[in-house]
Amino acid sequence: MKKGNTVFFKNKPRVESFAAVCGSKEKEGIIGQYADIALDDDMYGESTFEKAECKMLTTAISQCMEKGGKSEKDVDVLLSGDLLNQIISASFAARDYDLPFLGVYSACSTMSESIMLAAMLVNAGYVKRAIAATGSHFASAERQYRYPLELGCTRPPQSQWTVTGAGGCMIAAKDEGVKIVSATMGKVCDYGVTDVNNMGAAMAPAAADTIIQHLKDTGTQPSDYDMILTGDLGALGSRIVKDLSWEKGYDISKVHVDCGEIVYKVIESEFQGGSGAGCSAIVFNSYVLKKMQAGLYKRILFAATGALLSTVSSGQGESIPCISHAVELEL
Amino acid sequence: MKKGNTVFFKNKPRVESFAAVCGSKEKEGIIGQYADIALDDDMYGESTFEKAECKMLTTAISQCMEKGGKSEKDVDVLLSGDLLNQIISASFAARDYDLPFLGVYSACSTMSESIMLAAMLVNAGYVKRAIAATGSHFASAERQYRYPLELGCTRPPQSQWTVTGAGGCMIAAKDEGVKIVSATMGKVCDYGVTDVNNMGAAMAPAAADTIIQHLKDTGTQPSDYDMILTGDLGALGSRIVKDLSWEKGYDISKVHVDCGEIVYKVIESEFQGGSGAGCSAIVFNSYVLKKMQAGLYKRILFAATGALLSTVSSGQGESIPCISHAVELEL
Repeated sequence: MKKGNTVFFKNKPRVESFAAVCGSKEKEGIIGQYADIALDDDMYGESTFEKAECKMLTTAISQCMEKGGKSEKDVDVLLSGDLLNQIISASFAARDYDLPFLGVYSACSTMSESIMLAAMLVNAGYVKRAIAATGSHFASAERQYRYPLELGCTRPPQSQWTVTGAGGCMIAAKDEGVKIVSATMGKVCDYGVTDVNNMGAAMAPAAADTIIQHLKDTGTQPSDYDMILTGDLGALGSRIVKDLSWEKGYDISKVHVDCGEIVYKVIESEFQGGSGAGCSAIVFNSYVLKKMQAGLYKRILFAATGALLSTVSSGQGESIPCISHAVELEL
Repeated sequence: MKKGNTVFFKNKPRVESFAAVCGSKEKEGIIGQYADIALDDDMYGESTFEKAECKMLTTAISQCMEKGGKSEKDVDVLLSGDLLNQIISASFAARDYDLPFLGVYSACSTMSESIMLAAMLVNAGYVKRAIAATGSHFASAERQYRYPLELGCTRPPQSQWTVTGAGGCMIAAKDEGVKIVSATMGKVCDYGVTDVNNMGAAMAPAAADTIIQHLKDTGTQPSDYDMILTGDLGALGSRIVKDLSWEKGYDISKVHVDCGEIVYKVIESEFQGGSGAGCSAIVFNSYVLKKMQAGLYKRILFAATGALLSTVSSGQGESIPCISHAVELEL
């Protein structure tokens, strides 16, 4: 059932439903027309950015149930995490539901880690139905990781823009729908990058490591996939992941797409593109899964990427360890 | 395989090895003689508290492998998390190993959450061997959650003392050793407690909820267990969990033990006792498992408890959502 670091799901858990909520800036991009809810005001009627982030996540979770025609009593477990300290968005969202909750954290790779674990639990028959969800908010991330917005700091050209949005999907033991075929557990990779404004460069080695591990474990080639989707490497990181993979003998350039690269309309103004746990969450749980359901993509590898730093680790001179977990999906 | 919120492991994954590293204050207590390594200096040769915390965790993980006679190549996955923002202790510890890493977070319930997930992965045959580990450090927790130690703030009587220590265990598909029989996934409980110095009162309802759920799902009574072990409720929280359980018709008073209550030698000076992810990690992975191996305890329920707050959520006037995940072990 396992080869290398990849677990194969013989019962093929399915994506029963999915949902995405995006912010006002994200609405202007490609995702605007695919998201279930696109906000006009990123405060979402709340008094703080953090509460707005939590509300987006709650909305995504509720939408998953609603779109799947299910209620809390039909769901067995919620798996979630987010970028805020002590994953408060996920924990406070979980408080609103009468559901067992498993907190997970792998920064911006939380979407694929939670889907992977949900698929593992469903495939093993431990649970019938699990929801995996995550999100992020530009303003809460800025003030936690960088500077208060009020300071008006200049952004360096290698920086990315944290996505305001949340997304999730409901994984169930079913006979129809998009299948989760396998999942590759990522290892922590650290190439010594210390620039906290250059997450793409820091995360690219982890993405390349997991993608190549997956291809080796499954005995496949990049051309076997309609899409190899990374989470939020941005424009620069995407070039690096293609280079690193090519150096190891795998040319992913024809099928590689990065959520961070496609999430915004005019990428120049956001420099390298989108980032944050919400980035892959909204792209995957709207555009990608809708296109899969429509038959445009038949087989994809979704490898979200996470930078496992904190302000404390960077303040103490540490480099940025990164990780990428991958799930393989088939129509 | 699942009833209520409890998953039953028919292949009964085993605890192959376990290890605990404790700080100098913890060394003076009961754990001092059971821990594998007891520090004389809580800096552990490092330049910062956070790096010392990470090193303790790394030591616990390495000790697990060593004591089990295994190396990295024999282990399939590491599950870990901790109290520091973005679980940096776990992520940086994972960087030192050539192992897939799954980041988890449920505050001080991380020990039981990670053991539960490790047992799920091993029982399903996804992996042969998994390490679950966590830890905490008094000084890093104080400055992150409360005040810089240099301020010399007075501690209120209802407060607890964050344990300096780390512990872990290696879970494997084997025929001998302590069995993991079942695991109960916890729900988030919030009774509206807002006093961040009174974690015991905040967490007790979550502990009671999970313990009662477990007893119902398994059709057992408290007297069927040699020990019902909570994580870090402290003296006050322990009284509350007994009261809450009694009110619901379950008298756990004869078998209930709290790691926070027993970890320190003279409990008065630490007010309500120990807390932190390291609290249950060192008590469970030294004293408890050693006594189980020796046959003193044949069946225990380990329900570590976590307070899912952050300084931001408390600063925004939120109450403290809590959770408890439980694992049942049998000799």
